[in-house]
Amino acid sequence: MQRIAIIDLGSNSARLIVMHIYENGAYNLIYHQKEGVRLSEGTTGENTLRPEAISRAISALKTFSHMCSLLKVDKVLAVATAAVRNATNGQEFVKLALEQTGIPLRIVSGEEEAKLGFIGVINSVDINDALLFDLGGGSTELTLIRNRRIEQSVSLPFGAVNLTEKFSTQDKVSENQLTELKIFINQKLDAYPWLKDIGLPIIGIGGTARNIAKMDQRRKNYPFPKLHNYRLGVYSLEDLWKSIVRTSVNQRGKIPGLSSERADLIVAGTTIVKCLFDATRSPNLIISGCGIREGLFLEQYRNQEQQDVVIDDILTHSAHNILLFYNGNSLHAEHVALLTTAMFDGWQELHKMGPRDRTLLQIVSLLHDIGITINYYDHPRHSAYLIENARLFGLTHREQMLLAVVAGWHHGQSAKYVRNKIYSEFLDEADWQKARKMALLLALAESLDTTQAGLIERLDAGLKDGKAYLGLLPNTIPVIEKQAAEKHSRWFKKEFGQELKIEIP
Amino acid sequence: MQRIAIIDLGSNSARLIVMHIYENGAYNLIYHQKEGVRLSEGTTGENTLRPEAISRAISALKTFSHMCSLLKVDKVLAVATAAVRNATNGQEFVKLALEQTGIPLRIVSGEEEAKLGFIGVINSVDINDALLFDLGGGSTELTLIRNRRIEQSVSLPFGAVNLTEKFSTQDKVSENQLTELKIFINQKLDAYPWLKDIGLPIIGIGGTARNIAKMDQRRKNYPFPKLHNYRLGVYSLEDLWKSIVRTSVNQRGKIPGLSSERADLIVAGTTIVKCLFDATRSPNLIISGCGIREGLFLEQYRNQEQQDVVIDDILTHSAHNILLFYNGNSLHAEHVALLTTAMFDGWQELHKMGPRDRTLLQIVSLLHDIGITINYYDHPRHSAYLIENARLFGLTHREQMLLAVVAGWHHGQSAKYVRNKIYSEFLDEADWQKARKMALLLALAESLDTTQAGLIERLDAGLKDGKAYLGLLPNTIPVIEKQAAEKHSRWFKKEFGQELKIEIP
Repeated sequence: MQRIAIIDLGSNSARLIVMHIYENGAYNLIYHQKEGVRLSEGTTGENTLRPEAISRAISALKTFSHMCSLLKVDKVLAVATAAVRNATNGQEFVKLALEQTGIPLRIVSGEEEAKLGFIGVINSVDINDALLFDLGGGSTELTLIRNRRIEQSVSLPFGAVNLTEKFSTQDKVSENQLTELKIFINQKLDAYPWLKDIGLPIIGIGGTARNIAKMDQRRKNYPFPKLHNYRLGVYSLEDLWKSIVRTSVNQRGKIPGLSSERADLIVAGTTIVKCLFDATRSPNLIISGCGIREGLFLEQYRNQEQQDVVIDDILTHSAHNILLFYNGNSLHAEHVALLTTAMFDGWQELHKMGPRDRTLLQIVSLLHDIGITINYYDHPRHSAYLIENARLFGLTHREQMLLAVVAGWHHGQSAKYVRNKIYSEFLDEADWQKARKMALLLALAESLDTTQAGLIERLDAGLKDGKAYLGLLPNTIPVIEKQAAEKHSRWFKKEFGQELKIEIP
Repeated sequence: MQRIAIIDLGSNSARLIVMHIYENGAYNLIYHQKEGVRLSEGTTGENTLRPEAISRAISALKTFSHMCSLLKVDKVLAVATAAVRNATNGQEFVKLALEQTGIPLRIVSGEEEAKLGFIGVINSVDINDALLFDLGGGSTELTLIRNRRIEQSVSLPFGAVNLTEKFSTQDKVSENQLTELKIFINQKLDAYPWLKDIGLPIIGIGGTARNIAKMDQRRKNYPFPKLHNYRLGVYSLEDLWKSIVRTSVNQRGKIPGLSSERADLIVAGTTIVKCLFDATRSPNLIISGCGIREGLFLEQYRNQEQQDVVIDDILTHSAHNILLFYNGNSLHAEHVALLTTAMFDGWQELHKMGPRDRTLLQIVSLLHDIGITINYYDHPRHSAYLIENARLFGLTHREQMLLAVVAGWHHGQSAKYVRNKIYSEFLDEADWQKARKMALLLALAESLDTTQAGLIERLDAGLKDGKAYLGLLPNTIPVIEKQAAEKHSRWFKKEFGQELKIEIP
């Protein structure tokens, strides 16, 4: 096992996360701490970190350092971004921080900051082409992603804090102020023709992006408190922006979802985002909860394992990570996945589900038993809860809910799990139908590995003379398995309208 | 780490559970399998296990044996109860089982069976004095518990299966049959004067007891699918019994909560329980989900650790087990418990909660962060879910829900967690008030250990001149902690109607 601490000292706040890597390779976030340090406060014009700001930062780093030793951290990766990078006394500050706290801060360039954000995002949001922005207090990194690789990137030297100071947008702004602010931003963006009209989704990281998502969720009464991979369209964003720029700072204090410490910064912050959308004509905004901290961790972790920092298949990777983390019986999980896939392929004509559904069925097959970690009894319900809430990447929120329902039904359909209203908020009738079909295939596969001994080596699923058949190709006679699977015949008939014949050729 | 398999071969079914003991001493159930073997089938009269029954049992044991090797079990503890014990060819069967499956079955005496059930129950149900019954297919163990020790015990050679056969109560029974059945049971019970009018709660283990609980839960639309420590009064039991004994086996098939494979046995089973209540004049029935399998495990585990098999404080023990299991930060958890307790004691006049509440507050302090294992973000909500569903012993269902709410609020009160309707099904207005008070004390303590560094070594909580004060006795100046705690001042004022003054003397 190994514990890695990541420290990220920005213009506004300092953050510490601690990741735990288990012996089996699974990793998990076990600690997060945020301290407001306002490091760039008062630097406008002279670009020198002020003594009070330095002392706040040192004090936060001391706390982090103490925390790291308390949590027995093996390795500390600490970076400083725009505030320190742009300050004339940045190097001096880094030296002081090392002396007084023992933390070796590394000043990262704008380009490297963009790259770390990219690593955090590309391994947690399932997308091939997008524009990524990381909107901080003192800089904004823009990265054009094509085929899951960086095509272009730039670090602009303005963010929510310094634009707020420059255009005095803390409180109610006039039309004039707003126009000036927009002209300034647009001019800067114009310098990068690769942004123009790209029409790709925009992924946002950083406090402003998270706050946009929170406000939008509250407006829409979104039923699930999850920001990562939350998506909103350009019209919602436009609406939100319009309602914000008309308010005074006091009125903003009452906007649901807007954090009070950001009320003064939000006009400048959202205006940068709005201008980005205008320039790129992008259709929607995707929020990523993972950014440079996760990027730093993954860079380290993947290098340690001598693997590409861009994970090939983030959904499968995170599902395996979760399975390992909960000490799941991987042999059984993989075997059930093999069986569900064979049924899916053989009965394609019957269920008429698509390739994405096939992937989803594989994932839920891997994870159907993880609830055992909570309580063996009633574990399908606990698997559902874990799938609903785990750090599973590469699924939309709706897909995550769908898989939770399927896992909850892996011993058979039950109304019990549906009582939880949240599922109905996400799933429409077609989704419920899909959930029932997937749950049936999973329940059959689970039955066919009742003894978890992998007795059914292969399956031959197909249709013949208006009947569905399932040929079991076992390495020994699977009496219990066959009986258990046959118990689902009625459900099968109800779901697919055909008899199920299970045979051992 | 170590894996222990427990196998229990009864008259009706064979069961396997696998317990995993982690390096830090935490243990958890990771597997459960049940096979219907009907081992005592056809033995009435001659008392010889029949070849078909033997072959079913051997086949189940083979599956178990395979499962044990697959799960890399280190040690197998296997027992056989009444069916084998009472059979003339019992020893022969044990020999055959060893030869063919490698499983060394040990035939336990009625007395030992009673003792194992006692160990399973006394370490999972918080009670000092009670009558325990273990109602199986071919025997019923009765154990009188006083001061958490066995005072008397007896194994009666009848159970749900052989009484059903003897009195032919499979289908609809006549008044006559019922009277004869009752007379038979009452006469047997009369032989044990220590049962007479004891008026103690009765704890039930075994399939019949679990089925009684399930049926009662369905009748009452009980909102939580948990049997362990479920309680019902003697009137409910009487009602249930009356409605069952009037039905045919087909009608019973439709009784919600009654498992179909038990429909024929339930008349004899519930009549034994009813007669026990008549004889003892007991007020209520408590169902235990833990019985001889858990007893066998705990006997082994506690002996390994050289500790008394009767755990002193099951609530604290199981809370620590869960904390260890989820790799919680024990130092922080214990420290928060210390701080909440100090506030509880110093502000007794203010909150007016009792000694049981003090215990509950300690437990939730220990467990408030376990949700981190699911997802650090939003972890109070996950802690709530885990507390609601974990194998936490020594709490009533209502108390478990109360603690779930408190844990969900440990960063401050939130309506979000209350949306889950289940809590309101269990908690009344007084409980909610208590939950708010406990959550406030927990949130204060959590704030006072924000950095998890244990900076506030001791607390001095009290009342002076109509104000509540909190003197922090730190080993270094806890700036962050004091600020964080002060954020709860408004909540404090609202909850207790007094100003809170936090000072560092």
